[in-house]
Amino acid sequence: MKVLMAALVLVFGGALMGIAEPASDPLGPPAFTGEMAEMLVNGKVALDTIWVLLAAFLVFFMNLGFAMVESGLCRAKNTVNILAKNFIVFSIASLAFWAIGWGLMFGDGNAVMGLNGVLFASGADNSPAIGESYAGVYSAMNWTSVPFWAKFLFQLAFAGTAATIVSGAVAERIKFHSFIVFSFVIVALMYPVTGHWIWGGGWLQKLGMWDFAGSTVVHSVGGWAALAGVILLGPRLGKYRKDGSVRPIFGHNMSMTALGVLVLWFGWFGFNPGSTMAANFNDISRIAVTTNMAAAAASLSATVAAWLLLKKPDLSMILNGSLAGLVAITAPCAYVTVAGSVVIGLVAGVLVVLAVPMFDRLRIDDPVGALSVHLVNGVFGTLAVGLFASDAIMPGTTGNGLFYGGGLSLLGKQALGVASVGLFTFAIAFAVWSIIRATMGLRVSRDEEVGGLDVGEHGMEAYPDFQGFLTK
Amino acid sequence: MKVLMAALVLVFGGALMGIAEPASDPLGPPAFTGEMAEMLVNGKVALDTIWVLLAAFLVFFMNLGFAMVESGLCRAKNTVNILAKNFIVFSIASLAFWAIGWGLMFGDGNAVMGLNGVLFASGADNSPAIGESYAGVYSAMNWTSVPFWAKFLFQLAFAGTAATIVSGAVAERIKFHSFIVFSFVIVALMYPVTGHWIWGGGWLQKLGMWDFAGSTVVHSVGGWAALAGVILLGPRLGKYRKDGSVRPIFGHNMSMTALGVLVLWFGWFGFNPGSTMAANFNDISRIAVTTNMAAAAASLSATVAAWLLLKKPDLSMILNGSLAGLVAITAPCAYVTVAGSVVIGLVAGVLVVLAVPMFDRLRIDDPVGALSVHLVNGVFGTLAVGLFASDAIMPGTTGNGLFYGGGLSLLGKQALGVASVGLFTFAIAFAVWSIIRATMGLRVSRDEEVGGLDVGEHGMEAYPDFQGFLTK
Amino acid sequence: MKVLMAALVLVFGGALMGIAEPASDPLGPPAFTGEMAEMLVNGKVALDTIWVLLAAFLVFFMNLGFAMVESGLCRAKNTVNILAKNFIVFSIASLAFWAIGWGLMFGDGNAVMGLNGVLFASGADNSPAIGESYAGVYSAMNWTSVPFWAKFLFQLAFAGTAATIVSGAVAERIKFHSFIVFSFVIVALMYPVTGHWIWGGGWLQKLGMWDFAGSTVVHSVGGWAALAGVILLGPRLGKYRKDGSVRPIFGHNMSMTALGVLVLWFGWFGFNPGSTMAANFNDISRIAVTTNMAAAAASLSATVAAWLLLKKPDLSMILNGSLAGLVAITAPCAYVTVAGSVVIGLVAGVLVVLAVPMFDRLRIDDPVGALSVHLVNGVFGTLAVGLFASDAIMPGTTGNGLFYGGGLSLLGKQALGVASVGLFTFAIAFAVWSIIRATMGLRVSRDEEVGGLDVGEHGMEAYPDFQGFLTK
Repeated sequence: MKVLMAALVLVFGGALMGIAEPASDPLGPPAFTGEMAEMLVNGKVALDTIWVLLAAFLVFFMNLGFAMVESGLCRAKNTVNILAKNFIVFSIASLAFWAIGWGLMFGDGNAVMGLNGVLFASGADNSPAIGESYAGVYSAMNWTSVPFWAKFLFQLAFAGTAATIVSGAVAERIKFHSFIVFSFVIVALMYPVTGHWIWGGGWLQKLGMWDFAGSTVVHSVGGWAALAGVILLGPRLGKYRKDGSVRPIFGHNMSMTALGVLVLWFGWFGFNPGSTMAANFNDISRIAVTTNMAAAAASLSATVAAWLLLKKPDLSMILNGSLAGLVAITAPCAYVTVAGSVVIGLVAGVLVVLAVPMFDRLRIDDPVGALSVHLVNGVFGTLAVGLFASDAIMPGTTGNGLFYGGGLSLLGKQALGVASVGLFTFAIAFAVWSIIRATMGLRVSRDEEVGGLDVGEHGMEAYPDFQGFLTK
Repeated sequence: MKVLMAALVLVFGGALMGIAEPASDPLGPPAFTGEMAEMLVNGKVALDTIWVLLAAFLVFFMNLGFAMVESGLCRAKNTVNILAKNFIVFSIASLAFWAIGWGLMFGDGNAVMGLNGVLFASGADNSPAIGESYAGVYSAMNWTSVPFWAKFLFQLAFAGTAATIVSGAVAERIKFHSFIVFSFVIVALMYPVTGHWIWGGGWLQKLGMWDFAGSTVVHSVGGWAALAGVILLGPRLGKYRKDGSVRPIFGHNMSMTALGVLVLWFGWFGFNPGSTMAANFNDISRIAVTTNMAAAAASLSATVAAWLLLKKPDLSMILNGSLAGLVAITAPCAYVTVAGSVVIGLVAGVLVVLAVPMFDRLRIDDPVGALSVHLVNGVFGTLAVGLFASDAIMPGTTGNGLFYGGGLSLLGKQALGVASVGLFTFAIAFAVWSIIRATMGLRVSRDEEVGGLDVGEHGMEAYPDFQGFLTK
Repeated sequence: MKVLMAALVLVFGGALMGIAEPASDPLGPPAFTGEMAEMLVNGKVALDTIWVLLAAFLVFFMNLGFAMVESGLCRAKNTVNILAKNFIVFSIASLAFWAIGWGLMFGDGNAVMGLNGVLFASGADNSPAIGESYAGVYSAMNWTSVPFWAKFLFQLAFAGTAATIVSGAVAERIKFHSFIVFSFVIVALMYPVTGHWIWGGGWLQKLGMWDFAGSTVVHSVGGWAALAGVILLGPRLGKYRKDGSVRPIFGHNMSMTALGVLVLWFGWFGFNPGSTMAANFNDISRIAVTTNMAAAAASLSATVAAWLLLKKPDLSMILNGSLAGLVAITAPCAYVTVAGSVVIGLVAGVLVVLAVPMFDRLRIDDPVGALSVHLVNGVFGTLAVGLFASDAIMPGTTGNGLFYGGGLSLLGKQALGVASVGLFTFAIAFAVWSIIRATMGLRVSRDEEVGGLDVGEHGMEAYPDFQGFLTK
């Protein structure tokens, strides 16, 4: 790494900043000329770039996973609406994160938000120069030697994920245009601010809170924003009976749901290992394995838990179990052993099976289990860093968690991060949802909800050759 | 680049061509020996190769996108037929492009077509040697330092795409074996010729027409060929009523359609950034972003346009809007700013919403909107190079377009390319479709069309557990 | 390669094994210092690692392909059960291969199995050091310069594939928990042992049997294990009539099946080219093309064969034809010419069309054609190495096969491999299935089979909005 830094200074620093110091270069000019350094550095930058781009493509692909999971777990009559929401939310996210979100999150600023280069991602930036060679206004991202637009695309895909999480929880009763407005607000204003705290050089990052790939930054933020919306929307018609019992409302297509979960699992290999934002071969290999093992373990523990509690191996629990493991390992994936990842996964799978009925007891109606997956396990995963982190895995980062002799210090910081991000996001989201409700309304009419949002909002059915039976 | 060229000459040139000139090598022998050059060059070639191969895999994956979009937008009774067509067309394309298409497109020849190494891609070729070190008969591809078979696979995936575009437009009434024959002709003979003009060293390339990833080479060629077929086939039964009104025929599965569009969007990250055919880190990062932003912007503008014109946020318009943006950005993706890509996308999304009813007014029945997406926006995207290209983005290529002070010169060349490729492809396709119609017939019987091509052509249903209701 | 070995010795050997010999290094110290070597070697390792990881992700993604193919080809009433099996089998595989399978397969041991570092993949290992620099207990994998966990993930994805193959053949009548038990046994104990014989330094590898990406190691092993299960389970109710005729039982969703096949084809670009486990640019490019051409050729020959034999272009044959080509090219993909791969594919496509009715005549009921695809073509592909291998393609490996003047020697070794692996796997699988049948039972009750395993085993339907019609 020292060699690379020297080479980067030679290649980029010399041209761009005048800070190259060839005299003190440990390599010496004869063996390591500028031209050779250029080839070596260009190779390193190209390698990191294709890794980051391919990871970004995989994270983008998670949009398909969310679309299929969410529509599959809802009723056929609301499918068009859910799919439309998924497209719109990523499209809005793309423009909003470009227009303002990126800059608020990664622009140089204060402890709370970015203040430089906020608009249209157009601040000064000499990426892929790194470290001291970096000259620009997005210093928080100056540790990765990839071009600016590679950084942007990867982070954009993450921002889109946070907004998409909301979509499932509010499904089957939210007005289409109200959801569009909220999507813009979360990507443009909310997600970037808490993201700045943890990844953009803000106060939590300085404090020493660690969230490698976003159990908090992405998943619990989406979860808190969804929770506020769900509370204000109220449950779907008929979900909770007057006698206090819960009426299960089955999703219309478990094949699509299973497809979606496997796409998400696949995409998570971009989400977590890609968050190195560099082709660090040891880290990305290990992170890919911890990610996979947590998902597998959670899938199994959710199966067993469902079999014990619900008396059957419920497929929706198996599927949400896998996702729970993936969310939970997202923060700690880089800092824990493979055995640690298995334990985290086992816990996550049980948590999701307990959380689903808990939300139902609270009359919080979440059609797809988004809160149980992303909020509950986003919180657990962030705390798991404080429990399972091992200093030996990635020295110089987290230090040891509680179970590795590190005491409560790290766990405390993680908990502070969870609480502060949760409080901020829930409060702002509650306010924004409330304003939307007061102005344009949140919920479709009773008739539209019964007849389905597909016909009501979009004037079409998802499966007319089959649904035709229902209406004719 | 100069260093790389020197290194490539050292490694490949020395062994293969005897043109290495170490004495005049700017690097000098002591600091840059042949063995070190070998490691550096092998690294560069390997890096470019994995980028090109992974991009080719993503473009291949677009076959899934097309299959799902096309069958989802048609009726359940024709699903088996559409899926079978999608498999056959790529399989035919694989063999036909190997047998003759590659050579016609990239073989050294005249301004119109390749003449050397035409059969079975078996001409002399010392790839990954590049530039002056290249010795072989496929000189038009000697700028990318990847092995021959990587070039072949990437281009094969593109050829398959052009043929697949036809499939959707002629769906729900074409005879299966007639479609197979046309697929062979387009991949073996038509696509390679116009491809030679623009990418194979032909007259349009020499003239200075630019089509980075194939808005014209791939998409409008598929569109023109489809248009000829649609005209000769005529509209589906019942599509246009005698009173002049249009009867909407809904697709049977919008979930599949949405899945297909997201797969295509994902695959386009191979299609456009992969067309660098090298891991040029700045270019591939920027192109990935322009590609994404155009798709997102088009998705939104199509939503708004559909809401205004059709009074509802029509999901098929949202989906085709995304595709329209992707097609439109394909030619200009490398030459425009991110802001430019957003504008191109916004226009594309509106174009597709206007084009769909326009084709219906002309009684041109295109079940999936392939003409509106691939033909209209293929043309627009190619012209957009002449409007939005900025010389500062990729110096030494397009120069400035009209909106960047470049005047009408570039736009004129782009228009000439659009017109000549369109005229050639439409004329040949019309002749080929006509011959097929005269000899083996184009259209299934009226009874078969009413009963569905699945039973008629393939003796099976796509969803027997559900369609059984229809027939019993 | 010699240079790389020297560099690897310098970087890893020096630090880890003290076997560096700079004095005899052909590069000489002044031109190739340790620090430069470090950058070069790290680049090489990083390049290989991202290739192997991305290939592993693609192979993981094949789980989606199997899930969709298997459930699409079965009836709607068993969909939840098949999807649940697919999730569980990969989750079980992940834990079992980590706990014991990896070590049994790749641990240093005797000709039959690994004996060192068996438990929890925790033996000594200094990967990515290679060759003589390697120090550890997994020597059979010391030829690839990637980190340990990259090796593990790639191989884990393969192990999961073998187990998943079984799932389809035993579908629609097996007890859920019985299948789980068998899945554990095959991944933990059976697959690793025969894998050790061929890839782990065992007796077949030493003998000179070649199976590049696993026609035998993965596909026929899955096929033999499935065959034993199918025989013990017996056919589905109603499949074979008392008059001796066969009642076709159609799959419920050909769109899902087609989707699954395209996902598998896509994933195979990781399976075969990724089996280089290094970014060897010439090999991976050529292998990607042979893989694709075999699939395309098989798709076409299966279409023609089905048209001739069944009098219609049967979509399930087209789809299984593609898969047959992919399975058949898996062993020989690296050793044959592109023309050879086309011939192998053509044969494979015909074989699958012949095999499906053959199994039916034998009253062996395989709902998804897994035996025809994976067993028959796994055997054929392994033998094809002995027929089509050309020494010129990858010198120093297989030598020439029969058709290239190599005589019967190679073919004999391949046949011995096929027979011994088949005998071992079938025998053990038969024993294990028998024990499961005797203790916990294999087959669901007649009532449950008629009503569907979804309600019987899982208490839910896959498509309640549509299936509701069936039951209400």
